[in-house]
Amino acid sequence: MSKSIFYHAGCPVCISAEHDIVNLIGNQNVDIVHLGEHESQIAKAEAVGVKSVPALVTPNGNVLHLNFGASMADVKG
Amino acid sequence: MSKSIFYHAGCPVCISAEHDIVNLIGNQNVDIVHLGEHESQIAKAEAVGVKSVPALVTPNGNVLHLNFGASMADVKG
Repeated sequence: MSKSIFYHAGCPVCISAEHDIVNLIGNQNVDIVHLGEHESQIAKAEAVGVKSVPALVTPNGNVLHLNFGASMADVKG
Repeated sequence: MSKSIFYHAGCPVCISAEHDIVNLIGNQNVDIVHLGEHESQIAKAEAVGVKSVPALVTPNGNVLHLNFGASMADVKG
């Protein structure tokens, strides 16, 4: 299985969801990207359809927006 | 691992998210509950914190609201 990508920005909602996702699908199946620390990844995330964080991009390219933490506008500050 | 519960109500957003979740965490790890067909489960879902569908309740009791499909008020119709 290809890896999913979990985008977050360090907010409490994000961290909680991150733990849940890692527990559910396995640490080896997901790359975690902290957009606050890796701002160069923001454009890539938006390009695949991420509109808020936390969000999980599945191996087939679908975007699952989880419990709302912050909009991408907030992430960009 | 205990099972997660995926609550949905048959909407297109729900079905898409259901496929993604089943692919990610495995059919054997999640019970799917269609609240439109099993209205008796609505109160149980609300009691654990489900506010909209689709939503995934993890084995540790956290609720992950995925891409918004419908509010519980809509589900109750």
